[in-house]
Amino acid sequence: MSERGTLIAVGLGPGDPELITLKALRALQGAGAIAYFAKAGNQSHAHAIAAAHLRPDVPQLPLLYPVTTELDHKSDAYKRAICDFFDQSAATLARELDRGITVAVICEGDPLFYGSYMHLHERLAPRYPTQVIAGVTGMSGCWSSVGAPIAQGDDVFTVLPGTLAEAELARRIGDTDAAVIMKVGRNLPKVRRALAATGRLDRALYVERGTMNGAKTMRLADKADDVAPYFAIVLVPGWETRPEAGT
Amino acid sequence: MSERGTLIAVGLGPGDPELITLKALRALQGAGAIAYFAKAGNQSHAHAIAAAHLRPDVPQLPLLYPVTTELDHKSDAYKRAICDFFDQSAATLARELDRGITVAVICEGDPLFYGSYMHLHERLAPRYPTQVIAGVTGMSGCWSSVGAPIAQGDDVFTVLPGTLAEAELARRIGDTDAAVIMKVGRNLPKVRRALAATGRLDRALYVERGTMNGAKTMRLADKADDVAPYFAIVLVPGWETRPEAGT
Repeated sequence: MSERGTLIAVGLGPGDPELITLKALRALQGAGAIAYFAKAGNQSHAHAIAAAHLRPDVPQLPLLYPVTTELDHKSDAYKRAICDFFDQSAATLARELDRGITVAVICEGDPLFYGSYMHLHERLAPRYPTQVIAGVTGMSGCWSSVGAPIAQGDDVFTVLPGTLAEAELARRIGDTDAAVIMKVGRNLPKVRRALAATGRLDRALYVERGTMNGAKTMRLADKADDVAPYFAIVLVPGWETRPEAGT
Repeated sequence: MSERGTLIAVGLGPGDPELITLKALRALQGAGAIAYFAKAGNQSHAHAIAAAHLRPDVPQLPLLYPVTTELDHKSDAYKRAICDFFDQSAATLARELDRGITVAVICEGDPLFYGSYMHLHERLAPRYPTQVIAGVTGMSGCWSSVGAPIAQGDDVFTVLPGTLAEAELARRIGDTDAAVIMKVGRNLPKVRRALAATGRLDRALYVERGTMNGAKTMRLADKADDVAPYFAIVLVPGWETRPEAGT
Protein backbone atom coordinates (compact mmCIF):
# COMPACT_ATOMS: atom_id res chain seq x y z
CA MET A 1 0.00 0.00 0.00
CA SER A 2 2.58 2.56 1.10
CA GLU A 3 4.93 3.74 -1.64
CA ARG A 4 8.62 3.47 -1.03
CA GLY A 5 10.23 6.62 0.33
CA THR A 6 12.86 8.60 -1.54
CA LEU A 7 16.51 8.63 -0.55
CA ILE A 8 17.86 12.18 -0.81
CA ALA A 9 21.54 13.02 -0.47
CA VAL A 10 21.73 16.60 0.69
CA GLY A 11 24.99 18.43 -0.01
CA LEU A 12 25.37 21.09 2.69
CA GLY A 13 28.47 22.86 1.43
CA PRO A 14 31.80 23.50 3.12
CA GLY A 15 30.70 24.61 6.58
CA ASP A 16 29.18 28.09 6.48
CA PRO A 17 25.42 27.46 6.99
CA GLU A 18 24.78 30.31 4.51
CA LEU A 19 26.39 28.18 1.77
CA ILE A 20 23.47 25.73 1.89
CA THR A 21 21.46 25.80 -1.35
CA LEU A 22 17.74 26.56 -1.55
CA LYS A 23 17.22 23.00 -2.77
CA ALA A 24 19.04 21.52 0.23
CA LEU A 25 17.02 23.70 2.58
CA ARG A 26 13.72 22.52 1.10
CA ALA A 27 14.90 18.90 1.30
CA LEU A 28 15.74 19.32 5.00
CA GLN A 29 12.35 20.88 5.62
CA GLY A 30 10.45 18.19 3.72
CA ALA A 31 12.25 15.06 4.91
CA GLY A 32 10.61 12.46 7.14
CA ALA A 33 13.93 11.48 8.69
CA ILE A 34 17.45 12.91 8.77
CA ALA A 35 20.44 10.55 8.64
CA TYR A 36 24.12 11.34 9.02
CA PHE A 37 27.46 9.66 9.59
CA ALA A 38 29.30 10.50 12.80
CA LYS A 39 32.00 9.18 15.05
CA ALA A 40 30.77 8.12 18.48
CA GLY A 41 31.37 10.98 20.90
CA ASN A 42 32.13 13.53 18.12
CA GLN A 43 29.65 16.03 16.75
CA SER A 44 28.93 15.46 13.06
CA HIS A 45 30.06 18.40 10.89
CA ALA A 46 27.07 17.88 8.63
CA HIS A 47 24.76 18.01 11.63
CA ALA A 48 26.37 21.21 12.86
CA ILE A 49 25.92 22.87 9.44
CA ALA A 50 22.28 21.82 9.14
CA ALA A 51 21.33 22.27 12.80
CA ALA A 52 19.55 25.60 12.44
CA HIS A 53 17.30 24.14 9.72
CA LEU A 54 16.33 20.82 11.33
CA ARG A 55 12.77 20.50 12.62
CA PRO A 56 12.71 19.13 16.18
CA ASP A 57 9.83 16.75 15.38
CA VAL A 58 11.71 14.95 12.60
CA PRO A 59 13.50 11.76 13.71
CA GLN A 60 17.28 11.73 13.36
CA LEU A 61 19.24 8.62 12.46
CA PRO A 62 22.90 8.99 13.45
CA LEU A 63 25.02 6.33 11.74
CA LEU A 64 27.90 5.83 14.14
CA TYR A 65 31.20 4.55 12.78
CA PRO A 66 32.44 1.49 14.64
CA VAL A 67 35.43 2.05 16.89
CA THR A 68 38.36 0.54 14.98
CA THR A 69 41.33 2.25 16.58
CA GLU A 70 42.91 -1.14 17.39
CA LEU A 71 42.78 -2.21 13.72
CA ASP A 72 45.32 -1.48 10.97
CA HIS A 73 43.35 0.50 8.37
CA LYS A 74 44.87 -1.57 5.56
CA SER A 75 43.90 -4.86 7.23
CA ASP A 76 41.13 -7.16 6.08
CA ALA A 77 39.58 -7.00 9.56
CA TYR A 78 39.23 -3.22 9.24
CA LYS A 79 37.79 -3.43 5.75
CA ARG A 80 35.29 -6.05 6.91
CA ALA A 81 34.23 -3.94 9.90
CA ILE A 82 33.70 -0.86 7.70
CA CYS A 83 31.87 -2.81 5.03
CA ASP A 84 29.56 -4.35 7.65
CA PHE A 85 28.94 -0.90 9.05
CA PHE A 86 27.89 0.48 5.67
CA ASP A 87 25.69 -2.59 5.11
CA GLN A 88 23.97 -2.07 8.45
CA SER A 89 23.61 1.67 7.84
CA ALA A 90 21.96 0.97 4.48
CA ALA A 91 19.63 -1.54 6.17
CA THR A 92 18.67 1.10 8.77
CA LEU A 93 17.70 3.54 6.02
CA ALA A 94 15.96 0.82 3.98
CA ARG A 95 13.61 0.13 6.90
CA GLU A 96 12.49 3.78 6.81
CA LEU A 97 12.29 3.91 3.01
CA ASP A 98 10.16 0.73 3.01
CA ARG A 99 7.69 2.51 5.29
CA GLY A 100 7.37 5.31 2.75
CA ILE A 101 9.55 7.74 4.71
CA THR A 102 11.68 10.21 2.74
CA VAL A 103 15.17 10.01 4.23
CA ALA A 104 17.60 12.93 3.81
CA VAL A 105 21.24 11.95 4.28
CA ILE A 106 23.01 15.19 5.19
CA CYS A 107 26.55 15.50 3.84
CA GLU A 108 29.31 18.06 4.21
CA GLY A 109 30.40 19.46 0.85
CA ASP A 110 29.15 17.64 -2.23
CA PRO A 111 27.76 14.12 -1.65
CA LEU A 112 29.40 12.36 -4.62
CA PHE A 113 32.79 14.08 -4.34
CA TYR A 114 34.87 12.09 -1.81
CA GLY A 115 31.80 11.69 0.45
CA SER A 116 30.83 8.78 2.69
CA TYR A 117 27.29 9.01 1.35
CA MET A 118 28.29 7.15 -1.79
CA HIS A 119 28.60 3.92 0.22
CA LEU A 120 24.86 4.22 0.92
CA HIS A 121 24.19 5.27 -2.67
CA GLU A 122 25.82 2.14 -4.08
CA ARG A 123 23.71 -0.04 -1.79
CA LEU A 124 20.36 1.76 -2.01
CA ALA A 125 20.09 3.68 -5.30
CA PRO A 126 19.40 0.48 -7.31
CA ARG A 127 16.37 -0.27 -5.09
CA TYR A 128 14.85 3.08 -4.10
CA PRO A 129 14.01 6.36 -5.81
CA THR A 130 17.06 8.52 -5.21
CA GLN A 131 17.93 12.19 -5.58
CA VAL A 132 21.34 13.77 -5.11
CA ILE A 133 21.50 17.49 -4.33
CA ALA A 134 24.90 18.87 -5.31
CA GLY A 135 26.66 21.06 -2.76
CA VAL A 136 29.52 23.54 -2.71
CA THR A 137 32.71 21.52 -2.18
CA GLY A 138 35.07 22.14 0.71
CA MET A 139 37.81 23.12 -1.73
CA SER A 140 35.60 25.75 -3.43
CA GLY A 141 34.88 27.16 0.01
CA CYS A 142 38.62 27.37 0.66
CA TRP A 143 39.77 29.10 -2.52
CA SER A 144 36.80 31.48 -2.32
CA SER A 145 37.51 32.48 1.27
CA VAL A 146 41.16 33.11 0.30
CA GLY A 147 40.17 34.91 -2.94
CA ALA A 148 42.56 32.73 -4.96
CA PRO A 149 41.59 32.11 -8.60
CA ILE A 150 42.35 28.40 -8.85
CA ALA A 151 42.05 27.47 -12.54
CA GLN A 152 41.37 29.27 -15.81
CA GLY A 153 41.04 28.59 -19.52
CA ASP A 154 42.78 25.40 -20.56
CA ASP A 155 44.36 24.69 -17.16
CA VAL A 156 44.60 21.08 -16.03
CA PHE A 157 43.34 20.90 -12.45
CA THR A 158 44.19 17.99 -10.13
CA VAL A 159 43.02 16.91 -6.69
CA LEU A 160 45.70 14.91 -4.88
CA PRO A 161 45.51 13.08 -1.57
CA GLY A 162 48.39 14.01 0.73
CA THR A 163 48.71 10.29 1.45
CA LEU A 164 50.51 9.68 -1.87
CA ALA A 165 54.21 8.82 -1.72
CA GLU A 166 56.49 11.88 -1.89
CA ALA A 167 57.93 11.13 -5.35
CA GLU A 168 54.45 10.47 -6.74
CA LEU A 169 53.13 13.68 -5.21
CA ALA A 170 56.02 15.66 -6.71
CA ARG A 171 55.57 14.04 -10.12
CA ARG A 172 51.86 14.89 -10.17
CA ILE A 173 52.30 18.44 -8.85
CA GLY A 174 54.86 19.01 -11.61
CA ASP A 175 52.45 17.63 -14.22
CA THR A 176 49.44 19.88 -13.53
CA ASP A 177 48.64 23.58 -13.82
CA ALA A 178 46.55 23.82 -10.65
CA ALA A 179 46.27 21.47 -7.71
CA VAL A 180 44.45 20.94 -4.47
CA ILE A 181 46.13 18.68 -1.93
CA MET A 182 43.74 17.14 0.57
CA LYS A 183 44.26 15.04 3.71
CA VAL A 184 47.23 17.18 4.65
CA GLY A 185 47.49 16.52 8.41
CA ARG A 186 50.69 14.71 9.29
CA ASN A 187 51.57 14.53 5.57
CA LEU A 188 52.43 18.25 5.61
CA PRO A 189 56.26 17.90 5.73
CA LYS A 190 56.07 15.54 2.73
CA VAL A 191 53.69 17.87 0.87
CA ARG A 192 56.01 20.79 1.55
CA ARG A 193 59.04 18.89 0.19
CA ALA A 194 57.12 17.78 -2.93
CA LEU A 195 56.09 21.39 -3.62
CA ALA A 196 59.63 22.67 -3.11
CA ALA A 197 61.01 19.98 -5.43
CA THR A 198 58.74 21.20 -8.23
CA GLY A 199 59.28 24.92 -7.62
CA ARG A 200 55.64 25.40 -6.56
CA LEU A 201 56.12 26.06 -2.84
CA ASP A 202 56.00 29.85 -3.30
CA ARG A 203 52.56 29.65 -4.97
CA ALA A 204 51.08 27.27 -2.41
CA LEU A 205 48.46 28.43 0.10
CA TYR A 206 47.67 26.59 3.31
CA VAL A 207 44.01 26.68 4.43
CA GLU A 208 42.76 25.31 7.73
CA ARG A 209 39.07 24.91 8.58
CA GLY A 210 37.98 26.43 5.22
CA THR A 211 34.71 28.33 5.62
CA MET A 212 34.16 27.24 9.23
CA ASN A 213 34.61 29.47 12.24
CA GLY A 214 38.27 29.99 13.00
CA ALA A 215 39.50 29.62 9.41
CA LYS A 216 43.26 30.05 9.10
CA THR A 217 45.03 30.90 5.85
CA MET A 218 48.61 31.67 4.95
CA ARG A 219 51.25 31.12 2.30
CA LEU A 220 52.54 27.63 3.01
CA ALA A 221 56.09 29.02 2.81
CA ASP A 222 55.19 31.33 5.73
CA LYS A 223 53.89 28.54 7.95
CA ALA A 224 56.60 28.00 10.55
CA ASP A 225 55.50 24.62 11.90
CA ASP A 226 54.30 21.37 10.38
CA VAL A 227 51.27 20.97 12.63
CA ALA A 228 48.10 20.58 10.54
CA PRO A 229 44.71 19.00 11.10
CA TYR A 230 43.68 16.13 8.81
CA PHE A 231 41.20 18.30 6.90
CA ALA A 232 43.60 21.17 6.19
CA ILE A 233 44.19 21.61 2.46
CA VAL A 234 46.87 23.14 0.30
CA LEU A 235 45.96 25.13 -2.83
CA VAL A 236 48.32 25.52 -5.76
CA PRO A 237 46.64 28.09 -8.03
CA GLY A 238 47.09 27.67 -11.77
CA TRP A 239 46.44 30.21 -14.51
CA GLU A 240 49.58 32.31 -14.20
CA THR A 241 51.97 29.43 -14.65
CA ARG A 242 50.71 28.49 -18.08
CA PRO A 243 48.44 31.12 -19.68
CA GLU A 244 49.16 29.64 -23.12
CA ALA A 245 48.32 26.02 -22.22
CA GLY A 246 46.42 23.65 -24.48
CA THR A 247 46.31 23.20 -28.22
CA MET B 1 33.11 61.12 2.10
CA SER B 2 31.44 58.07 0.64
CA GLU B 3 33.07 54.74 1.46
CA ARG B 4 34.11 52.55 -1.41
CA GLY B 5 31.57 49.87 -2.33
CA THR B 6 32.26 46.16 -2.02
CA LEU B 7 32.84 43.92 -5.02
CA ILE B 8 30.97 40.63 -4.52
CA ALA B 9 31.41 37.65 -6.82
CA VAL B 10 28.24 35.62 -6.56
CA GLY B 11 28.49 31.95 -7.52
CA LEU B 12 25.05 30.90 -8.77
CA GLY B 13 25.65 27.19 -9.28
CA PRO B 14 25.26 25.04 -12.37
CA GLY B 15 21.92 26.24 -13.72
CA ASP B 16 19.05 25.04 -11.54
CA PRO B 17 17.93 28.24 -9.72
CA GLU B 18 17.29 26.06 -6.64
CA LEU B 19 21.03 25.37 -6.44
CA ILE B 20 21.70 29.00 -5.49
CA THR B 21 23.01 29.30 -1.91
CA LEU B 22 21.36 31.34 0.82
CA LYS B 23 24.45 33.56 0.83
CA ALA B 24 24.18 34.22 -2.92
CA LEU B 25 20.51 35.02 -2.57
CA ARG B 26 21.17 37.59 0.17
CA ALA B 27 23.95 39.12 -1.91
CA LEU B 28 21.60 39.51 -4.90
CA GLN B 29 18.99 41.09 -2.67
CA GLY B 30 21.43 43.49 -1.03
CA ALA B 31 23.46 44.61 -4.04
CA GLY B 32 23.31 48.16 -5.40
CA ALA B 33 24.13 46.99 -8.92
CA ILE B 34 24.27 43.63 -10.72
CA ALA B 35 27.00 43.01 -13.30
CA TYR B 36 27.43 40.06 -15.65
CA PHE B 37 29.37 38.99 -18.71
CA ALA B 38 27.38 38.24 -21.85
CA LYS B 39 27.77 37.95 -25.56
CA ALA B 40 25.93 40.63 -27.53
CA GLY B 41 22.60 39.20 -28.65
CA ASN B 42 22.83 36.14 -26.36
CA GLN B 43 21.13 35.81 -23.01
CA SER B 44 23.62 35.43 -20.16
CA HIS B 45 23.32 32.06 -18.40
CA ALA B 46 24.11 33.72 -15.09
CA HIS B 47 21.36 36.26 -15.67
CA ALA B 48 18.87 33.50 -16.50
CA ILE B 49 19.72 31.62 -13.28
CA ALA B 50 19.42 34.73 -11.10
CA ALA B 51 16.48 36.31 -12.93
CA ALA B 52 13.80 35.32 -10.43
CA HIS B 53 15.77 36.92 -7.60
CA LEU B 54 16.74 40.24 -9.21
CA ARG B 55 14.98 43.35 -7.96
CA PRO B 56 13.68 45.44 -10.86
CA ASP B 57 14.85 48.70 -9.27
CA VAL B 58 18.49 47.62 -9.11
CA PRO B 59 20.64 48.75 -12.07
CA GLN B 60 22.14 46.03 -14.22
CA LEU B 61 25.53 46.34 -15.86
CA PRO B 62 25.88 43.88 -18.74
CA LEU B 63 29.53 43.52 -19.76
CA LEU B 64 29.32 42.64 -23.44
CA TYR B 65 32.20 40.70 -25.00
CA PRO B 66 33.57 42.40 -28.10
CA VAL B 67 32.76 40.73 -31.39
CA THR B 68 36.02 39.01 -32.38
CA THR B 69 34.83 36.39 -34.88
CA GLU B 70 37.21 37.72 -37.53
CA LEU B 71 40.24 37.29 -35.22
CA ASP B 72 42.32 34.15 -34.67
CA HIS B 73 41.91 33.38 -30.97
CA LYS B 74 45.65 32.69 -30.64
CA SER B 75 46.58 36.01 -32.23
CA ASP B 76 47.96 39.03 -30.43
CA ALA B 77 45.13 41.15 -31.84
CA TYR B 78 42.56 38.89 -30.18
CA LYS B 79 44.42 38.85 -26.87
CA ARG B 80 44.70 42.64 -26.94
CA ALA B 81 40.97 43.03 -27.68
CA ILE B 82 40.03 40.70 -24.81
CA CYS B 83 42.46 42.32 -22.41
CA ASP B 84 41.11 45.79 -23.31
CA PHE B 85 37.60 44.50 -22.75
CA PHE B 86 38.43 43.23 -19.26
CA ASP B 87 40.18 46.53 -18.48
CA GLN B 88 37.12 48.51 -19.58
CA SER B 89 34.78 46.18 -17.68
CA ALA B 90 36.84 46.66 -14.52
CA ALA B 91 36.72 50.44 -15.06
CA THR B 92 32.92 50.29 -15.40
CA LEU B 93 32.64 48.51 -12.05
CA ALA B 94 35.25 50.77 -10.43
CA ARG B 95 33.09 53.82 -11.21
CA GLU B 96 30.22 52.25 -9.24
CA LEU B 97 32.47 51.06 -6.41
CA ASP B 98 33.98 54.55 -6.11
CA ARG B 99 30.47 55.91 -5.56
CA GLY B 100 30.01 53.50 -2.64
CA ILE B 101 27.80 51.09 -4.59
CA THR B 102 28.02 47.38 -3.74
CA VAL B 103 28.40 45.56 -7.05
CA ALA B 104 27.44 41.87 -7.34
CA VAL B 105 29.05 40.11 -10.30
CA ILE B 106 26.81 37.12 -10.99
CA CYS B 107 28.64 34.00 -12.17
CA GLU B 108 27.55 30.57 -13.34
CA GLY B 109 29.04 27.80 -11.21
CA ASP B 110 31.85 28.82 -8.88
CA PRO B 111 33.48 32.23 -9.55
CA LEU B 112 37.13 31.23 -9.09
CA PHE B 113 36.90 27.86 -10.89
CA TYR B 114 37.37 28.51 -14.62
CA GLY B 115 35.20 31.64 -14.39
CA SER B 116 35.49 34.92 -16.30
CA TYR B 117 34.98 36.78 -13.05
CA MET B 118 38.60 36.26 -12.11
CA HIS B 119 39.69 38.74 -14.78
CA LEU B 120 37.79 41.40 -12.79
CA HIS B 121 39.10 40.01 -9.51
CA GLU B 122 42.73 40.40 -10.60
CA ARG B 123 42.08 44.00 -11.57
CA LEU B 124 39.84 45.12 -8.70
CA ALA B 125 40.51 43.00 -5.59
CA PRO B 126 43.78 44.84 -4.82
CA ARG B 127 41.87 48.15 -4.72
CA TYR B 128 38.40 47.44 -3.31
CA PRO B 129 36.92 45.37 -0.49
CA THR B 130 36.04 42.07 -2.14
CA GLN B 131 34.01 39.01 -1.21
CA VAL B 132 33.75 35.78 -3.19
CA ILE B 133 30.72 33.57 -2.61
CA ALA B 134 31.51 29.99 -3.61
CA GLY B 135 28.96 28.21 -5.79
CA VAL B 136 28.13 24.65 -6.82
CA THR B 137 30.30 23.90 -9.87
CA GLY B 138 28.83 22.79 -13.18
CA MET B 139 30.61 19.47 -12.89
CA SER B 140 29.10 18.76 -9.42
CA GLY B 141 25.69 19.51 -10.92
CA CYS B 142 26.40 16.99 -13.68
CA TRP B 143 27.57 14.03 -11.60
CA SER B 144 24.80 14.67 -9.06
CA SER B 145 22.07 14.71 -11.71
CA VAL B 146 23.48 11.45 -13.12
CA GLY B 147 23.95 9.93 -9.64
CA ALA B 148 27.54 8.98 -10.45
CA PRO B 149 29.96 8.86 -7.49
CA ILE B 150 32.96 10.59 -9.03
CA ALA B 151 35.84 10.16 -6.57
CA GLN B 152 36.43 8.42 -3.26
CA GLY B 153 39.14 7.84 -0.66
CA ASP B 154 42.61 8.32 -2.11
CA ASP B 155 41.49 8.80 -5.71
CA VAL B 156 43.37 11.30 -7.85
CA PHE B 157 40.80 13.48 -9.62
CA THR B 158 41.65 15.51 -12.74
CA VAL B 159 39.83 18.15 -14.76
CA LEU B 160 40.97 18.15 -18.38
CA PRO B 161 40.09 20.56 -21.19
CA GLY B 162 38.95 18.68 -24.32
CA THR B 163 41.19 21.07 -26.24
CA LEU B 164 44.33 19.13 -25.26
CA ALA B 165 46.08 17.13 -28.00
CA GLU B 166 44.82 13.55 -28.32
CA ALA B 167 48.01 11.86 -27.06
CA GLU B 168 48.18 14.27 -24.09
CA LEU B 169 44.53 13.65 -23.28
CA ALA B 170 45.06 9.87 -23.39
CA ARG B 171 48.20 10.09 -21.25
CA ARG B 172 46.40 12.13 -18.60
CA ILE B 173 43.24 9.99 -18.61
CA GLY B 174 45.45 6.94 -18.13
CA ASP B 175 47.25 8.63 -15.23
CA THR B 176 44.24 9.53 -13.06
CA ASP B 177 41.57 7.63 -11.14
CA ALA B 178 38.71 9.97 -11.93
CA ALA B 179 38.38 12.63 -14.60
CA VAL B 180 36.09 15.33 -15.90
CA ILE B 181 36.62 16.42 -19.48
CA MET B 182 35.31 19.90 -20.23
CA LYS B 183 34.96 21.91 -23.45
CA VAL B 184 33.85 18.79 -25.29
CA GLY B 185 32.03 20.27 -28.29
CA ARG B 186 33.81 19.48 -31.52
CA ASN B 187 36.57 17.76 -29.55
CA LEU B 188 34.25 14.80 -28.89
CA PRO B 189 35.70 12.39 -31.52
CA LYS B 190 39.18 13.02 -30.09
CA VAL B 191 37.95 12.59 -26.50
CA ARG B 192 36.27 9.34 -27.48
CA ARG B 193 39.47 7.99 -29.06
CA ALA B 194 41.57 9.01 -26.05
CA LEU B 195 39.14 7.21 -23.71
CA ALA B 196 39.11 4.10 -25.89
CA ALA B 197 42.91 4.06 -26.05
CA THR B 198 43.07 3.95 -22.24
CA GLY B 199 40.27 1.41 -21.77
CA ARG B 200 38.05 4.01 -20.03
CA LEU B 201 35.39 4.46 -22.72
CA ASP B 202 33.01 1.99 -21.07
CA ARG B 203 33.04 3.96 -17.80
CA ALA B 204 32.58 7.35 -19.44
CA LEU B 205 29.33 9.28 -19.15
CA TYR B 206 28.29 12.06 -21.51
CA VAL B 207 26.30 14.92 -19.95
CA GLU B 208 24.74 17.76 -21.92
CA ARG B 209 23.23 20.86 -20.31
CA GLY B 210 23.94 19.58 -16.76
CA THR B 211 21.26 20.72 -14.38
CA MET B 212 19.56 23.01 -16.89
CA ASN B 213 16.24 22.32 -18.55
CA GLY B 214 16.61 19.68 -21.25
CA ALA B 215 19.57 17.87 -19.62
CA LYS B 216 20.72 14.84 -21.63
CA THR B 217 22.80 12.00 -20.20
CA MET B 218 24.02 8.72 -21.57
CA ARG B 219 26.97 6.36 -21.55
CA LEU B 220 29.38 7.90 -24.04
CA ALA B 221 29.72 4.47 -25.68
CA ASP B 222 25.97 4.60 -26.39
CA LYS B 223 26.07 8.03 -28.04
CA ALA B 224 25.69 7.33 -31.76
CA ASP B 225 26.83 10.67 -33.12
CA ASP B 226 29.67 13.08 -32.38
CA VAL B 227 27.50 16.19 -32.16
CA ALA B 228 28.04 17.97 -28.84
CA PRO B 229 27.67 21.54 -27.60
CA TYR B 230 30.76 23.31 -26.29
CA PHE B 231 29.62 23.02 -22.67
CA ALA B 232 28.88 19.29 -22.74
CA ILE B 233 31.12 17.38 -20.35
CA VAL B 234 32.35 13.81 -20.03
CA LEU B 235 32.64 12.15 -16.61
CA VAL B 236 35.01 9.28 -15.92
CA PRO B 237 34.09 8.07 -12.42
CA GLY B 238 36.91 6.78 -10.23
CA TRP B 239 36.65 4.75 -7.05
CA GLU B 240 36.07 1.32 -8.53
CA THR B 241 39.23 1.35 -10.62
CA ARG B 242 41.59 1.71 -7.71
CA PRO B 243 39.97 1.03 -4.32
CA GLU B 244 43.41 0.30 -2.80
CA ALA B 245 45.14 3.48 -4.02
CA GLY B 246 47.50 5.57 -1.97
CA THR B 247 50.18 4.76 0.55
